[in-house]
Amino acid sequence: MPLGEFEVIARYFTRATPRRDVLLGVGDDAALLAPPPGQALVAATDTLVEGRHFLPGTPPLSVGHNALAVNLSDLAAMGADPAWALLALSLPDPDERWLEEFAGGLHALATRHGVALVGGDTVSGPLVVTVAVLGFVPADAALRRSGAKPGDAVYVSGTPGVAAAGLDLLRRGVMTFESRDPRVQRMLFAEPRLALGRALRGRASAAMDVSDGLLGDLDKLARASTVGAVLELERLPIAPMLADAYDRAQCERLVLHGGDDYELLFTMPADGAAARAAEIAEQAGCAVHRIGRIVAGEGVRCLREGREEPVTGGGYDHFAH
Amino acid sequence: MPLGEFEVIARYFTRATPRRDVLLGVGDDAALLAPPPGQALVAATDTLVEGRHFLPGTPPLSVGHNALAVNLSDLAAMGADPAWALLALSLPDPDERWLEEFAGGLHALATRHGVALVGGDTVSGPLVVTVAVLGFVPADAALRRSGAKPGDAVYVSGTPGVAAAGLDLLRRGVMTFESRDPRVQRMLFAEPRLALGRALRGRASAAMDVSDGLLGDLDKLARASTVGAVLELERLPIAPMLADAYDRAQCERLVLHGGDDYELLFTMPADGAAARAAEIAEQAGCAVHRIGRIVAGEGVRCLREGREEPVTGGGYDHFAH
Repeated sequence: MPLGEFEVIARYFTRATPRRDVLLGVGDDAALLAPPPGQALVAATDTLVEGRHFLPGTPPLSVGHNALAVNLSDLAAMGADPAWALLALSLPDPDERWLEEFAGGLHALATRHGVALVGGDTVSGPLVVTVAVLGFVPADAALRRSGAKPGDAVYVSGTPGVAAAGLDLLRRGVMTFESRDPRVQRMLFAEPRLALGRALRGRASAAMDVSDGLLGDLDKLARASTVGAVLELERLPIAPMLADAYDRAQCERLVLHGGDDYELLFTMPADGAAARAAEIAEQAGCAVHRIGRIVAGEGVRCLREGREEPVTGGGYDHFAH
Repeated sequence: MPLGEFEVIARYFTRATPRRDVLLGVGDDAALLAPPPGQALVAATDTLVEGRHFLPGTPPLSVGHNALAVNLSDLAAMGADPAWALLALSLPDPDERWLEEFAGGLHALATRHGVALVGGDTVSGPLVVTVAVLGFVPADAALRRSGAKPGDAVYVSGTPGVAAAGLDLLRRGVMTFESRDPRVQRMLFAEPRLALGRALRGRASAAMDVSDGLLGDLDKLARASTVGAVLELERLPIAPMLADAYDRAQCERLVLHGGDDYELLFTMPADGAAARAAEIAEQAGCAVHRIGRIVAGEGVRCLREGREEPVTGGGYDHFAH
C-alpha cells in the first residue's frame, strides 16, 4: 500500500531539532520561527530537476544532499549563517527506500551546518526538488555581487572543475554512481563553503557562488558591479587529479565552465590581498586562489601570460542547454 | 531564439516593491530582508504540479495566482501578515506569453496583499511551480492547529465546495477556462482569507486552511489537538449557486471534500461564540458558519439532526489519488 503524503512527512521529514529559534516546525500550516534581533534575514531558493540538474538514477542520498547544498551555497555567498530550510518535493512514487535515503542525505548536511527542516510539501509528480533556505547575516556585513571595484583582486576557492569531471565520467559511463573516485564523489557530495562565506565578511568587496561556471559567473559579478574583469588563465587552480588525467586545455575547460563544486568567487582590494587571503584560507579551512583582477569597463577578458586569448563556451544556462 | 534563465528572471519577476524591509531583492545569490523586531517569522511552502494540482491548459494567469494563493492561505491560517515570497519555476519552454500571464497573476495577488517577490529560480523541466512565503505574527497570537478544546465550537468561513464544483465542470468539459461562471472563476481565482486570519488572532483556539477537504482537514485539526469533533451536516453552508444546481447529497460531498476555496476552519470557546463570530465576520468581511463542536476522544463523527451518519470518501491526499 502506498504511503500517503502525511505519512511521508511524518516519517521522513519530521525530526527533532536542537535549534531553540524553531517555535513550531513541520506539521502545522506554516512554521513559526524567531529570527535573532539586529540581523538581516537571508533567503534563497533553488530547484533540482531530474535529467537536468542530476542524472536519472542518481543515488537519492546525493539528491537530498545537493537539494540543500545548492541553497546553502547561496547563503555562503552572502556570508550568512544558515538556520532553517523548507522542502518541496515532487516525486513519482513515494518509494520508501528512495525517501529514506533522500531524507538521510538532506538531514546529514543539515545537521553538519545546524540547519533545521521546518516545513515542506510532498506531492506526486515528476521528480523535482525545491528547497528554500533562511539564514542571517549582520546587514552591513552581507556579501553582494555588486561591490567589486576596478583594481580589486579576483579570487576563487578550492579547485573548481572536479565535479564537472565527475559528471563527465558518469555521463560517458566510464564510472558508476558507486565509484569511490574523488571526481565522482565531488559531483555527488560537494560541500558548500559556509565557513569561507563567514571568513569573507568584512574582507571581500563582492562575492557569489560558482554555480554556472567560473567564466560566466565572473561575468555576472562584473555586470552586477558595473565593471570589467580580467582572468589570468595561467593562474587557474587545477586540481592534481585533473592535471593527471586531462591535458591543460581540457582542465581549463572544466575549471571555466563546470559548476557543481560550490566554490565561491570573490573580490578584495588588491592592497594587502595576499595577507588577507592567507587569513581567510586559515579561517575557512580551504585554499583560495588569486585568478585575476577587476578593471574599469565591462565584460571578462582572458589573458595567458599577459596576452589576450579568446575562450569559447559560456556559463551554464538552465534554459539554453 | 529562446529566452535565457537570467533574462526570464529580469523581465518577468523583477519588479520594484514599496516594501522598505527588502534590503536586496531578486538578482543576487539570496535576498536580504529586515524582519520586524518582536514578531515571529512565519514560513510556508507549497508546490503545484500540472495535471495534479491544476488541469493541463489552465490559464497561466490562474496558475500564477494559485501558486501564491495556496501559500498565502497557509499564512492566513496562522493569523500572519504576509511579506515576502520566493518563486521556483520549472517549465518546459520559456514561452513569453505564458510567462507574462503567469507573472501577471502572481504579481496581481502579491500586490493586493503587499507581498514582494524577493527571489527565485527558473529552470527548464516539467511544469512544477513552488512558492515559499514569509510573513509575521506576534508569537503569542499565532493560530495553531493544536489548541482546540472539548466544548469549543467549530466554524468554517465562506462557502467551501464552489471551487470543487468549478473543477468538476471543467473536467467534464461542461465549461471551458474562459467561462465567467462563478464556480469556474472560484476554481481559477479564489482569494486567500488573510483578513480573516488576522481577525481570528486572540479569538480562535485553533485554525487551519481547508486544502484537502473540510472533513479530512477537521480530522487533522482534531488529531493535532488530541480531541474529537462532531460535524453537524445540516449546518454545512451551501452556496445558493450550488443548491440551485445540485441535490443536497451532491452539495454536501462538494463541501466536505472540495479543497480549492482557501476557506479557513477554526474553533473558538463556545461561550460567547456567536457574538465573537459576528465581530470576526464584520472585521474580515466574510461570513463564518458554525458547523459543529469539539469533543473529548478522537476522530470526526457526522451527525444529521442529532443522529450519526456515516460519510464516505476522505480528504484529498496528493499521493493517494
